[in-house]
Amino acid sequence: MNELKGACIIGQSGGPTSAINASTYGAIKTALGNASITHVYGALNGIKGVLDDNLIDMSMEDSDELEFMKYTPSSALGSCRYKLKSPDADDTDYKRILEIFKKYDVRYFFYNGGNDSMDTCNKISKFMLKNGYECRIMGIPKTIDNDLYGTDHCPGYASAAKYIATSLMEIYHDARVYDTGMITVVEIMGRNAGWLTAASALACYKGEGPDLIYCPENDFDLQAVMTKVEAIYKKNGKCIIAVSEGIKDKNGRYISEYGNDLSNAKDGFGHAQLGGLASYLADYIKSKTGAKVRGIELSLLQRCAAHCASQTDIDESFSAGKAAVEYAADGITDKMVGFERSYENGKYVCNIKLFELTDVANTEKKIPSDWFNDTRDGLNEKYIEYALPLIQGETKLPKENGLPRFVRLKKVKAVKL
Amino acid sequence: MNELKGACIIGQSGGPTSAINASTYGAIKTALGNASITHVYGALNGIKGVLDDNLIDMSMEDSDELEFMKYTPSSALGSCRYKLKSPDADDTDYKRILEIFKKYDVRYFFYNGGNDSMDTCNKISKFMLKNGYECRIMGIPKTIDNDLYGTDHCPGYASAAKYIATSLMEIYHDARVYDTGMITVVEIMGRNAGWLTAASALACYKGEGPDLIYCPENDFDLQAVMTKVEAIYKKNGKCIIAVSEGIKDKNGRYISEYGNDLSNAKDGFGHAQLGGLASYLADYIKSKTGAKVRGIELSLLQRCAAHCASQTDIDESFSAGKAAVEYAADGITDKMVGFERSYENGKYVCNIKLFELTDVANTEKKIPSDWFNDTRDGLNEKYIEYALPLIQGETKLPKENGLPRFVRLKKVKAVKL
Repeated sequence: MNELKGACIIGQSGGPTSAINASTYGAIKTALGNASITHVYGALNGIKGVLDDNLIDMSMEDSDELEFMKYTPSSALGSCRYKLKSPDADDTDYKRILEIFKKYDVRYFFYNGGNDSMDTCNKISKFMLKNGYECRIMGIPKTIDNDLYGTDHCPGYASAAKYIATSLMEIYHDARVYDTGMITVVEIMGRNAGWLTAASALACYKGEGPDLIYCPENDFDLQAVMTKVEAIYKKNGKCIIAVSEGIKDKNGRYISEYGNDLSNAKDGFGHAQLGGLASYLADYIKSKTGAKVRGIELSLLQRCAAHCASQTDIDESFSAGKAAVEYAADGITDKMVGFERSYENGKYVCNIKLFELTDVANTEKKIPSDWFNDTRDGLNEKYIEYALPLIQGETKLPKENGLPRFVRLKKVKAVKL
Repeated sequence: MNELKGACIIGQSGGPTSAINASTYGAIKTALGNASITHVYGALNGIKGVLDDNLIDMSMEDSDELEFMKYTPSSALGSCRYKLKSPDADDTDYKRILEIFKKYDVRYFFYNGGNDSMDTCNKISKFMLKNGYECRIMGIPKTIDNDLYGTDHCPGYASAAKYIATSLMEIYHDARVYDTGMITVVEIMGRNAGWLTAASALACYKGEGPDLIYCPENDFDLQAVMTKVEAIYKKNGKCIIAVSEGIKDKNGRYISEYGNDLSNAKDGFGHAQLGGLASYLADYIKSKTGAKVRGIELSLLQRCAAHCASQTDIDESFSAGKAAVEYAADGITDKMVGFERSYENGKYVCNIKLFELTDVANTEKKIPSDWFNDTRDGLNEKYIEYALPLIQGETKLPKENGLPRFVRLKKVKAVKL
């Protein structure tokens, strides 16, 4: 191991979660205490903060206050959805990043995000190597979508899963309060992978979950689904359906596009913006059955409900950020920190494992096909066994006057020494 | 006090809350231990359970299991939205109720619900008195709407308020994660009274709440609101607006009707069914500003999110059910149990107080006019002082495998002795 002394930059990217700040705090706290790291800078709004020279000095924050980051949802440093161009096509951004790295003597870069962010890490790493600038670049995963390659699960997923399973249990009780008929459609996030929607199966495991669960991994046949809904409704007078926002028919068309003339709005990464599926399906089912139907969209709440976070997730997320800094200080670069699961005496254990950024970037991990039930409208015990250890532990989120106490950063601008 | 020996029936009515089962459990537990009460029956689906002779024997439930009722959302005995006709117009239902009371020797009737339920209590009480059937009838309040006459606050309100304030704080952080513009509209329940929407002001009190809060107590002028939204958005790049589902313009027209051709659907009590306001306003604001706008409807979650209940609310709700039984056994009838607030050495204390059913029935309590700020788009310190003590205390909801453990009743059918 060769020692590399210099400053570090930590940034956050992509959609926020209830646990990304725990990871970032894990990295910040560890970096502040590491002898090789001379200064710890936070990039405001991810890589855009680097490009815009918009850095804050993390050593200026009160250390007790900083600890509140661990339980604060969203991205305390701000996020972005900025995709770097290929350096072969246009290396302007990379030159600028190198300039900033040189300005602040940055030798460590930690980027906390999803697969697009791992792609960003990978490209920067390659560029720095090519230009002979010594630095160590590590990706710290986060995504409620749980779709990153390699790692057993992603920081942030379990907290969203716990919230979704809890809310579905509560909806289960609420939706059967009257002796009159009622059909409920719950729309859950997830473009291409159904991990979040699958979490509603944890409520089924408790006997208080949806009747039908539809993920994007399986083709969605509206007519076949209607037949099932009608049969369940006829038998029980109630039916709860959990659907991923990204369910598609066999021709690859989003169900949410059936009713809505989506204006083809795209987000920064070129993904189609989805939404309104619950209300479309609710209207459709109502028109077919005449039943009372309610559409519920869990919306932003599923990714920011820190009050219902999994303490296991918070602790693991923190450890991912911590490990990234420790590995980098030990000479590792160009990797994503991830998780590997093992069982000791039947007890779940989460170990840190490193993954190649190249492998992670832009690869999506879907739910294994044999984790679905035979009728592809639910998850089987393989998913339950996978997910249950992740949602254990109630959050230690500090409260003040009956409400959460979230972090308040001073955000003192970094100055070149 | 004259002793009255006989059975009791306990029923639940109206929309469920996170705390109604705590009240019902308070009544059941107290009744099971009271010497004057020979049998404790639960009416399935409220007064319909009485009319249909659909009663369960609460003594057949395991007492440890029954305790889970305290933390279970929704209505464990089932609810209804059945409005009794005036006995002068049609006394069929009342005669049937008397028949059932006689069949099971029922001398106590406890009804847990909102103002419509207090009306039901009142009518039954008058009919029994007129027909010389001695029995004691007590109303136990519940409503997230907090709109019952007399009582300082209603069981169930504080838990919904705590969830709303917490969620709004979390949305506040999520909605400002990117450095791009964003306007968020959050739709909160409340037909005629803005108590639930007002709870979002608790998030403002923490410095992490919506910019604008609109309740049905004030006329909603869409053009004037747009001017404010545009100014805030121009200044901050973000704007969060909390609206009651029931906001109306100066002509009394619901804003939710502006865009939607509501099919004039009415619920069992003749109220118009509202909804879709958030998406209407989001579309409207988007069309006027060109900004990215997200509409969020808290939907059912706000009334069933037991995982975020106020322990103060749970304890007070339990005590309301308990007091109803104790007062009735002591000879009181024809009253609603409610709360009166006092302060001892500056510390909030909640005392039980009795109210006339006649006064409570069908009266709605709105937010006092001087609790709003001057611009009628927020609440002032009077509301904060009122609401803050109510949301204190984290729920002791038992967890099993990382998820809530809700009650599982056997529901053993009552038999005539």
